Amino acid sequence: WQLLNEQGEEKLSRQFSFKDFASALAFTNQIGAFAESIGHHPDLLTRWGSVTVTWYTHKIGGVQQGDFLCAIETELLFSRQNTG
Amino acid sequence: WQLLNEQGEEKLSRQFSFKDFASALAFTNQIGAFAESIGHHPDLLTRWGSVTVTWYTHKIGGVQQGDFLCAIETELLFSRQNTG
Repeated sequence: WQLLNEQGEEKLSRQFSFKDFASALAFTNQIGAFAESIGHHPDLLTRWGSVTVTWYTHKIGGVQQGDFLCAIETELLFSRQNTG
Repeated sequence: WQLLNEQGEEKLSRQFSFKDFASALAFTNQIGAFAESIGHHPDLLTRWGSVTVTWYTHKIGGVQQGDFLCAIETELLFSRQNTG
């Protein structure tokens, strides 16, 4: 995970690698379902072979504790997908 | 649609607006299914309320005729989603 500064907003971002487009899109949907369940939504950049997940809180223009918890949950979902 | 130059690569990009995250993610999946069907994959940036679709051909580091056709098909899929 990296802390980025995008146009004055701090964001917490990590790129995850996948073997193809379908696996990447499946992960995007998994994170999307999690996001809907908590009512907080990351940016999800899906490409062939990767998904970049970026958490931040628009309202404060930066990263707060909840975003770090979302990053941890994202890690858990990724590790489960790749072991299950 | 805009022609961007990203790190020396020309890309064809457009942002589509949606009423919420779920609608945006549904469009991402629709474009993803189209991409899989033709074996050519755009970058798909899904956020709350928008999807940015970016077509380019990695092999040539730019945009070729097929990418313009994909942009047209993306428009068709978008207009159908919003009228059907």
